[in-house]
Amino acid sequence: MQKPSIPKGTRDFSPLEMAKRNYIFNTIREVYHLYGYQQIETPAMENLSTLMGKYGEEGDKLLFKILNSGDCFSALSNEEIAERNPVKFAAKACEKGLRYDLTVPFARYVVQHRNEITFPFKRYQIQPVWRADRPQKGRYREFYQCDGDVVGSDSLLNEVELIQIMNEVFHKFDIRVCIKMNNRKILTGIAEIIGEAEKIVDITVAIDKLDKIGLENVNTELRNKGLAEEAIAKLQPIILLSGDNREKIAVLKEVLAASETGMKGVEELEFIFDRIDLFTLQSTLELDLTLARGLNYYTGAIFEVKSLDVQIGSITGGGRYDNLTGVFGLSGVSGVGISFGADRIFDVLNQLELYPTDSLLTTQLMFVNFGEAEEIHLLPILNQIRQAGIRTELYPEANKMKKQMGYADTKNIPYVALVGENEMKENKINLKNMLTGEQQLVSVTELIDLFTQA
Amino acid sequence: MQKPSIPKGTRDFSPLEMAKRNYIFNTIREVYHLYGYQQIETPAMENLSTLMGKYGEEGDKLLFKILNSGDCFSALSNEEIAERNPVKFAAKACEKGLRYDLTVPFARYVVQHRNEITFPFKRYQIQPVWRADRPQKGRYREFYQCDGDVVGSDSLLNEVELIQIMNEVFHKFDIRVCIKMNNRKILTGIAEIIGEAEKIVDITVAIDKLDKIGLENVNTELRNKGLAEEAIAKLQPIILLSGDNREKIAVLKEVLAASETGMKGVEELEFIFDRIDLFTLQSTLELDLTLARGLNYYTGAIFEVKSLDVQIGSITGGGRYDNLTGVFGLSGVSGVGISFGADRIFDVLNQLELYPTDSLLTTQLMFVNFGEAEEIHLLPILNQIRQAGIRTELYPEANKMKKQMGYADTKNIPYVALVGENEMKENKINLKNMLTGEQQLVSVTELIDLFTQA
Repeated sequence: MQKPSIPKGTRDFSPLEMAKRNYIFNTIREVYHLYGYQQIETPAMENLSTLMGKYGEEGDKLLFKILNSGDCFSALSNEEIAERNPVKFAAKACEKGLRYDLTVPFARYVVQHRNEITFPFKRYQIQPVWRADRPQKGRYREFYQCDGDVVGSDSLLNEVELIQIMNEVFHKFDIRVCIKMNNRKILTGIAEIIGEAEKIVDITVAIDKLDKIGLENVNTELRNKGLAEEAIAKLQPIILLSGDNREKIAVLKEVLAASETGMKGVEELEFIFDRIDLFTLQSTLELDLTLARGLNYYTGAIFEVKSLDVQIGSITGGGRYDNLTGVFGLSGVSGVGISFGADRIFDVLNQLELYPTDSLLTTQLMFVNFGEAEEIHLLPILNQIRQAGIRTELYPEANKMKKQMGYADTKNIPYVALVGENEMKENKINLKNMLTGEQQLVSVTELIDLFTQA
Repeated sequence: MQKPSIPKGTRDFSPLEMAKRNYIFNTIREVYHLYGYQQIETPAMENLSTLMGKYGEEGDKLLFKILNSGDCFSALSNEEIAERNPVKFAAKACEKGLRYDLTVPFARYVVQHRNEITFPFKRYQIQPVWRADRPQKGRYREFYQCDGDVVGSDSLLNEVELIQIMNEVFHKFDIRVCIKMNNRKILTGIAEIIGEAEKIVDITVAIDKLDKIGLENVNTELRNKGLAEEAIAKLQPIILLSGDNREKIAVLKEVLAASETGMKGVEELEFIFDRIDLFTLQSTLELDLTLARGLNYYTGAIFEVKSLDVQIGSITGGGRYDNLTGVFGLSGVSGVGISFGADRIFDVLNQLELYPTDSLLTTQLMFVNFGEAEEIHLLPILNQIRQAGIRTELYPEANKMKKQMGYADTKNIPYVALVGENEMKENKINLKNMLTGEQQLVSVTELIDLFTQA
C-alpha cells in the first residue's frame, strides 16, 4: 500500500511546529487585544459571487472552487458540457469557493452585519486562506493570515495605532524591523506634478525597482513606458530622495506644492510622524517613496515591515482603503488595516532562534511507570499535582526504563519523577532534572511548590 | 445590489460569539495540556483518495470536493463527460476534498509521519470539518471538532485519563454531566451468548432505542430482525440491567461467563472503575449497555457525555479503536480518543448562562476623545497604561459624547476615562465605572494599580 500523502502546497503541523505557531498567533492576538481589537471568524467557503472579480483575472484562476454536491450538471446543457471549457463549466457547477484572503470576506461581513456592528469596528481575524498558486519554496496553497482592520473611521489615529501594534508585536518577538510607510496620495501627487497622472502605476512599479535594478534602469523603464524626458527629469529628486523622514517631508512639500492631493498626503504623513514622536518606538519608522504595494485598493497610508536581520520579503503589510465595502453596495466606509505574515515570521523566528523556551514546553513532569501497584499509588497524587496546574503525565505502560526515558527525552519533558517501592513506603518522589541529571527526594507538597514558585 | 450572504449551513462568528468560542476552546486545550496531550494541525484539503470509502457510501456523498484547478476536464473523454454522471465525473475532475472529521486525517498523519513520532502519541486537534449535510437547526456544514487521542498504547490508563479529562473539562465549564461508558467486547459477548453473533449491529441498534420506544417495541424490533424467541428471552436481563456500576458488573459476570470476549470486556470495565474510584469525579460515571455508538470502528471502551440540565444530544463521545491506521497500511496501532462537540457545548453554556464575565471582556478601559490637544496629551499615557497590560482604547475621533459613550456601552467596556482641560492641567484622569456610574479622579499610577491589582 502506498504511503498516504497530502495535497501539494499544503502542510501538516507537528506538535513542535504548533507550539511555535501558537506562540506567534498568541503574541499577535495579545497585542491586538491591548488596542481594543476584537476577533471575528468567517466560513472557509464563501459564495463564488462574493469572491469572483475581487482579485483580478489572475486571482479568479487561483480560487479553489467546490463542486456543487448532488447533481453538479443540473444547470448545464449538453452543449455547454461538450465545450469542455473549465471556466464556463465552473461558473455553473460550482457555487462556492475557498476564501482567498481575509479582506474580501471581512468586507462582506461588514455589509452583511452592518446593522449589528458598532462603528468604528476594530476587528482582527486569524484564519487560513487558500490559493491555487504553483507551490514553491516558501509559497503554500494553504496559509494563515493575521489581519487587523478598523472600519468606519477616517481618523489617522488608527494609522498611528497600527504602527504601534506592528512595533509592539515585533518587539515582543525580539525581531528587529524597519516599518516602511508611504502614502498613495503622495504617489498620485507626483504623477500629477510631472503631468503623467494616468501613468501612476507604471511610475510606481518602476520606482519600486530602484533597490533591485538601480537608477539608470529605472529611468530606462520609465522611458520605455512612454514617459517624456521632461517628466523623467522632474522625477529624479523624488526617486533619489534621502535624509531622515522630516527632511524628506520638507523636500516633498516643495516639490508637491502645486498638487492638492500630494499636499494632503504630506499632511497625513506629518500628522502620523508627529504622533509617533510622542513615544519611543523600538522599530525604525521610515518614509519610503518606493513603497507602492496594493495600488489597486490603497488610497492613503501604505505600510510594509522588513526584518533587519533576515533576508526575506515583507513580513507584514497594510494600508488605508477608502472604499472597502463599495463593491458589496455599502459606500462611504473607510478602512485601514495590516496583515501579519505568519509563515514568514515563523521562518525569521526559526532562523534567529528566538522562540522563548517556555513557549515550546508542553509536559512539565513525567512519572515513570513501574507497574500496577505504583500506578494505583500514583493516580491520586497525579490528580493533586494537576489540580495545581502542573502539566503532568504518567507513562501509560510499565515498559523498559530506557523506553520511558526516551519518551520523556524526545518530548522535551524537563523533569522525570521516579516512584518505586522505597519511595512509596516513604511517600516521597524522586525528582530528576533531565537537563542537569540532578535528583532530589521531595514530598508531593514540596514538588508542587517547586513547580508553581519557579 | 443584493446584500451579500454566506453559503447555507455556514456561519460568521461575531466578537461576542468568538469570545465564547475561545473560552470553550481554551478550556479544552488547557485540560488536554494538563495531561500531556500535544496539538497538531492537518490541512483543510486532503487527497480524496485519503477520504473516500472511510465514512461509508453516505459519507462519500457528503464530502465537499474541490474542482481541479487548470483544466478539470483533462482526464475525461468526451463520452465520459456526456454521461453527466456526477460521481464518475468527480472521480476524475476532483483530486482533493475538505476534511470530514479529524480522525481519518489523524490516522493519515500517524502513518505518514510514523518515523518522526514517539509513541505513545497523545495528540489533540481543534479544527473545523465540513459535511454537505442538509442544513437544519443545530446542524452545520462547517463546524469545529476538538479531538484528543492516544495512539500506540494498549494501556487502559489512557481510558482512565480520558474520563478524567472529560470530567475536568465539564467541571471547569460548570456543566453537570453524566459520562456514559460501555465496552464493545461486552456487546459482542452478549451476541455470542444468545447465539446471534452476526446480528450484533441489529441488537445494539435496538437496545439503543430502549429509552425512546420502550421494552415492548425493542423486543418487536428484535423479532422483526429475525432473532429467535429464545435469544430475545436471554436478552431481557441485559436490556433491563439496573443498579449501580458494580451491581451491573456482577450480573454481567454471570451472564457472560461463557464468552471469552465478553469477560474481557467486563475485566476492562472493572479495571477502569477501580482506577476511577481512587479519586473523586464531579461527574457521574455510568455503565450503560444501551450505548452502542461507533460500532463500525470501536473495539473496546465506548464513551458518551450527556448534559444533566439541558435536553440535547451527546456533547462528547469517543472510544477505543484497535486498528485506526490499518486502512493506510500500518497495522497493530491501537488508539483511544474522545471528541468534544464545541457547537453543542456552546448551546448548553448559552442556555445555562455559564460564561464567566471575564471570558467575555475585551477592552477594559476607553478614553473619551475631546480633540487634538487632549489626544496629544493622552497618547503617551495610553502607551504607559498598555505597557502595564491593560487593554485600552482611545476613541479615534472627537465625536459627540453620546456617540462615544454608546460605543463603550455596546462594546461592554466597563470603565471610561475622561480627560478634558482641567484633568490635563492637574495631570489626572476622571475614571467612570460604567456599571455603577461612580466617578473618581486618579493619577496614571493609581489607575494602573486599580486595574492590575483587581
